[in-house]
Parts: sequence; structure tokens; C-alpha cells
Amino acid sequence: MTSYLLERAWVDGAVRDDVLVEIEGGRFARVSPADRRNPTGDAATLRGLTIPGLANDHSHAFHRALRGRTQRERGTFWTWREQMYAVAEQLTPDSYFALARATYREMAASGYTSVSEFHYLHDPEPAMGDALRAAAAEAGIAITLLDTCYLSSGFGAPPEGVQLRWSDGTAERWAERVGDGPAAIHSVRAVPRDQLRVFRGRAPLHVHLSEQVAENEACLAAYGVTPTRLLHDEGLLGPGTTVVHATHLTDEDVDLLGSTGTNACITPTTERDLADGIGPARRLVAAGCRISIGSDSHAVIDPFEELRGLEMDERLATQVRGHWSAAELLAIGAGGQIAVGERADLVTIGTTGPRTAGTGADENTAVFAATAADVTHVVASGRVVATRDDHEEIGRELDEALSTLWGRAP
Amino acid sequence: MTSYLLERAWVDGAVRDDVLVEIEGGRFARVSPADRRNPTGDAATLRGLTIPGLANDHSHAFHRALRGRTQRERGTFWTWREQMYAVAEQLTPDSYFALARATYREMAASGYTSVSEFHYLHDPEPAMGDALRAAAAEAGIAITLLDTCYLSSGFGAPPEGVQLRWSDGTAERWAERVGDGPAAIHSVRAVPRDQLRVFRGRAPLHVHLSEQVAENEACLAAYGVTPTRLLHDEGLLGPGTTVVHATHLTDEDVDLLGSTGTNACITPTTERDLADGIGPARRLVAAGCRISIGSDSHAVIDPFEELRGLEMDERLATQVRGHWSAAELLAIGAGGQIAVGERADLVTIGTTGPRTAGTGADENTAVFAATAADVTHVVASGRVVATRDDHEEIGRELDEALSTLWGRAP
Repeated sequence: MTSYLLERAWVDGAVRDDVLVEIEGGRFARVSPADRRNPTGDAATLRGLTIPGLANDHSHAFHRALRGRTQRERGTFWTWREQMYAVAEQLTPDSYFALARATYREMAASGYTSVSEFHYLHDPEPAMGDALRAAAAEAGIAITLLDTCYLSSGFGAPPEGVQLRWSDGTAERWAERVGDGPAAIHSVRAVPRDQLRVFRGRAPLHVHLSEQVAENEACLAAYGVTPTRLLHDEGLLGPGTTVVHATHLTDEDVDLLGSTGTNACITPTTERDLADGIGPARRLVAAGCRISIGSDSHAVIDPFEELRGLEMDERLATQVRGHWSAAELLAIGAGGQIAVGERADLVTIGTTGPRTAGTGADENTAVFAATAADVTHVVASGRVVATRDDHEEIGRELDEALSTLWGRAP
Repeated sequence: MTSYLLERAWVDGAVRDDVLVEIEGGRFARVSPADRRNPTGDAATLRGLTIPGLANDHSHAFHRALRGRTQRERGTFWTWREQMYAVAEQLTPDSYFALARATYREMAASGYTSVSEFHYLHDPEPAMGDALRAAAAEAGIAITLLDTCYLSSGFGAPPEGVQLRWSDGTAERWAERVGDGPAAIHSVRAVPRDQLRVFRGRAPLHVHLSEQVAENEACLAAYGVTPTRLLHDEGLLGPGTTVVHATHLTDEDVDLLGSTGTNACITPTTERDLADGIGPARRLVAAGCRISIGSDSHAVIDPFEELRGLEMDERLATQVRGHWSAAELLAIGAGGQIAVGERADLVTIGTTGPRTAGTGADENTAVFAATAADVTHVVASGRVVATRDDHEEIGRELDEALSTLWGRAP
């Protein structure tokens, strides 16, 4: 049994002072008001504002290698894609384990206590998938490994180059290999329409959706419908499905996603970096979708920047403020709650640093002032997985993993 | 004479290893290659990547009080404005000194070594202006105090409420008080057209320009021209003039600003926060403008986020990557260069932390990976003004200054 005295905490949708949490078997056994002057036994005090662990709903761990690398020569989408493939091509189970562990540790230190890994580097499988699971276990964060079906490089086009290593040949063969585990369709480009029925009824099921206008145009040319309509007609939308990006949607697409209660994962920092554009996140929620966030390409790993990005980019698109409250954004980001029976994930934000001081030490501080650098203490499943003192070591681990890929920086 | 051995530094438009800088009288006296194995005398080594000090070209110091406060009840533009006035109303020279010093110290720790303060809280003057100058001096950053003329609350509307305290009555009386110092026109809303001639030939001269569509519409209704055209026709554009925001411009506006070589200060994090929209920054440069950045409302104080924001928001608007190289962005942000005769301002970025490790330790690291939290050491005019060890004290100072305004946070 571990217990913490939380100086301030986000509990039941509000900030409360002096909350005592008791943890057993990785879950909250008791959450109660604490008497600060007479603290219970050996409870360690977490100063600052403690919020539930944040969920990273879309990750390609190996993209961390591209941060700061893909902007060269002005960094078009094509220089990005070329470098992304170059990294993918040289990864082995060992080097991917090292890179993913360091990346997941960066996530943990930023406040993410779980990750949905959209995994399509299947060669050799199962060693590559096992490397990711082991990396998450060592970093101390929960992983949902979404084994991703990737069969074609475009509508009616066979896989090429390194993509060949990612293809199972057919969706049936993919399904035989994966069994009933968490699944993903890379995109409607990457799996032919006549094989999509294989994914019917699967959950969780993730799929990249309408990130670029070009995908929509090619889908319309190939099948006469939008990617969303295609997924809908194949029976693949619903509460067990997460569509990632959902940037370029028609009104009908928004209605289909909303009326089926499909989840939409928005990745603002990646959508900025890849010039995707600003999607209709608020309209999706109004239509009936649930929303989540992801650090995706890891150009940035900062859950607070993603949450703020939802609101800020909507402001840029509409020239109106106030689409979401900080409480709504926090609920979007949180993987759970600080409540009895839930996984004991706690993220403590320092409220007395240069960025956060004087901002109220409440949900607005978390969403509109804090950054990943302000996270001081992270507990996942009851275990301390990162404190500020670990930053140096995490940096060293990232440097180590990346210098084997890029050559050592001075 | 002080000297530093820079492990890596941005000198002459490129990253170089082992640079020795010698500083005398607050300026660089010598910049030369250093022999790392045989360092010169008592030069202190700055590990990581050192870049020139960054220039904050637009600040309202008192807005730091609003961070995390103005998003409540979904935070419309009007709740923001109401709170901004409530803070302005209660500031005294003493409380403004304390708030500004803490805010400027946050700036210094973030890598800004100079600030253009757009100052219109003139009551009592000169005590309020003196408070800002003293605050900057104590924080160790250079200040250009732009005494701002603010005469009317809208086109043809007299000042109201707290604005009365900011008005000199007429531009002539403003000019008598200010003499020939650095100047600003709050906006074309706030100074009637027939008084704009008073500002002709002044430099530096700053002015808020076309931040919101409503300003353009009201200007067209009042004078039949856009705000840019108005400034041009009154002879106020040119290399000594900086227009701030320049968000909603016609093609003719872009041409007028470019052909006169006017500076444009873009403030991406504020433009996100205030839902201004995305301005034509790249087109302004193509037309002939120089560009600078500012933290403006201090919703965020992070020069790297502003620089990256220039590129990222342009990507969101155009769905194309690669508008600026990292080197171009760094040149936009820098207040000078690491070169003989220049002011000795140095900003050192840690390149081995979670965000920056493995990203190349070059200009791309600075612009596309680092945050204010990665700044480890800041020198302004040859003097150390912030290191990472100061963060706690800066937070305490901010908390102190803000708790007198908002009541003490727990």
C-alpha cells in the first residue's frame, strides 16, 4: 500500500486541496480529504497540482528520430517522408527497443501514462512488436499495441520499397497473425476495399482518416465515396473505432462519425508540423464523437501543448475564442480519473515555476500555462515512473538511441 | 574582460564547434575558434548550443497577470478584455514595478535579452514608465520603452473608464510629454486621423495594425481606407515603423508595407490566444518587410514557440511545409549576432534534455525542438542574467507580484 498527500488535485471535475490517495495493486483503493496538519502515516506529499495520467492515443515511436531532422532544406512533406522511410528501413528489434524505450520515457516524463502505438514496422514480427511492448514496460507506461494492416502504397498500387516489409500480403493473413488483439488499418489507401470486411467488429480499431486532401480525392476517384463514407459503408465506424486526424471532412462525414459515436484522435502538434490543416474537432464533438489526443510524429511530446492546441487552432480557424473550457480539455486528455478502482496514474505539475506561477493552480494552469517541462512527478499504475531528476538520464538515453541511427552529435 | 568557450555556437549563419568569445564593456571584443584541449585562461565553458540573444519586439508587461485567468467561462475576447482592464486599473508604480520585473526575468530566462514595451498605462507618468525602465534594468534586459498615444476608444469615440487614465487629450500634448523618445500609436482606432501627422518622421514608431477584422471594417467606415492605407497616406510607414500583428491585410496593404520597407512584428502565441487568425507573414517578407516576433500578451513567454509558430501557423493556413528554414527563423528572432562590436548577448540551449537530445544540436534544434525550459544560461550585455538555477526564484517573484493582484493562490 502506497499513499500520497496531494496538495491540490483534480478530483470529480474540480480542483480540491489536500487529497489523500491510497493505492493498492496499482489502483486507487481510497481517495479522501486529508488533514494537512495531521497527515496520515507515511504518505508522501506531492506539491503542486496533481491531475490524472494523460493518454497518448496515437504514436509512431520511431518518428522521434525525425525531430529537428526533417525541417532541413525547408522540409517539404517529401523530405519528411524520405527520412521517415530511411529510419524505418534500418531499425532492428534491438535498435527499435532502445529508441522506443527512450521515447516512452520522454512521454512518461511529460505526463503521458499510456500510449496507443500504431505499429506497422512488422519485420521481423513478432520481435518488433515485442520490442515495443518491452520498451513500454521498462518505461512504466501502459501500451495498447495496435498491429496495423498495411497492404498497398496507394489505391490499387502494390507496396513498394520498405513498405514490402510491412505487408502481410492480404488482410486475412494479417488477421491470422494478429489473432484478436488491438488492430489498426493504416488508411483506406493501404487496405483495398474488398478486404476491409475482415476488420468488421474488431475493437479497438484505429485508422488514419482524411489527414490530407489528396487522400480524399484519390478515394473518391477509386471508390466514388469519401474515406469516412467508405469506412461507414463497410461497417467499420462505431465507439470501438478511433479515426486519427479527421482533418478534411464533409458535413456528411462529420454526421456519420458523430452518429456512430466514433472516437476521433486529434494530434495538433503533428497536424501543424505536417501542414495537414485544422480539422473540425469541436463540430465532431457536437455531432456525437469522443475526442482524444496523440503526439503522433513526436515533433513535440507535450500533452499540454496538444490540449491547448485543440483550442488554439480552433481559434485560428474561426477567429472566435472559447470553444472548450479547460475542464473539458483536461477530460479529453485524461486516461482516467483520480477515483477508487481506477488505475493509479498521477501527474503532478509544478505551480510555482516561471510559466505556471500566479496562474491560479487550477485546470487553467494545467491546460493554458503548463508545459511538459513543468511536470515534476509521474505515477503510473501506482509506481513512480518519472520525476524531474530523471530528465538528464532520459536525454542521455535518447541521445544514445538516436546516435546509432544518425551518427553521434557532438 | 569576461570570456566564454562556447561548445557549439551560431556564428556567421552557421553552427560552429568551440568558439571563444571575449567580452569587454558589454560587447564582443573578439570571436575566434578555440582549442578545446587547450582552453584560453579562465574562459567558462557553456555546454550545449549558444545562439545570439533573442529580441522581444512587442510586450505589454502587465498582461502576464492574465495567463491562465482569462480562459474561464470559456474565455471570450470580452472576458479577456474585461479582466485586462481590471488589472490595468489597479496597477500602481510599485505594483507594476514588481510585476514587470518578474515578467522581464521570465523573459530573460526564456532567452529574450531585449524588449520593446508598448506602454500606455500612463497614470501617473513618468512614474509608471520609470517603473518599467527600472524593472528591465533589474532583470538585466535592454528595454525600448515605447510611450504609446491612446486618445480614443474607437473611431470618433472618446476614451472611457480606465482608458481616460491613458489619454493625453491630444497627440500634441502626448508629444510635449514624450519629447523625441521611442513612440507608439496604440492603433488607428485610438488616434484620430487629423492628429496622425504629429507622428510623421518619428522612429522607432510602433502601431497595432489590423489584428481583428472589425478594426478594418470600422476604419473603412470612418475614413474609406484600410488601416494600412491610412498610415501610408499619413506618411507613417517606413523602415523606422513597426506594425504589430498585420493579420488581416489586403493585397494592396501587403504591397504598401513591403514597398516602404516597414517592419512587421508577428506574435503567433498571442494571435492564437486572442483568435486573431493567421496573417500573411511570408508574403510580407516577399514584399520587402522585415519580420520580428513578440510575446505580446504573455499567454506564453517562449521565443522558440513564437519562431516555430511563424512556420507552423503558415503550414496550417496553406497546407504546405517549408516556408522558412530554421536559419531564417533564427535570424528573425535574434536581436543581433555573435560578432565583434555587437552587444554581448548569449543564449545557451541544453541539447541533451528530453526535448532536444538527438535532434542535431544545430539551428533546427533551436527552432524546432527547444522550448524556453531548455535555456540553461543567458548573458545580456556581457552580464549573466539568468541560469536554470534561477527558475525557482523567478517563479516566487511572479507569485509574489501576482498574489497582490489576484489574492494568494494556495
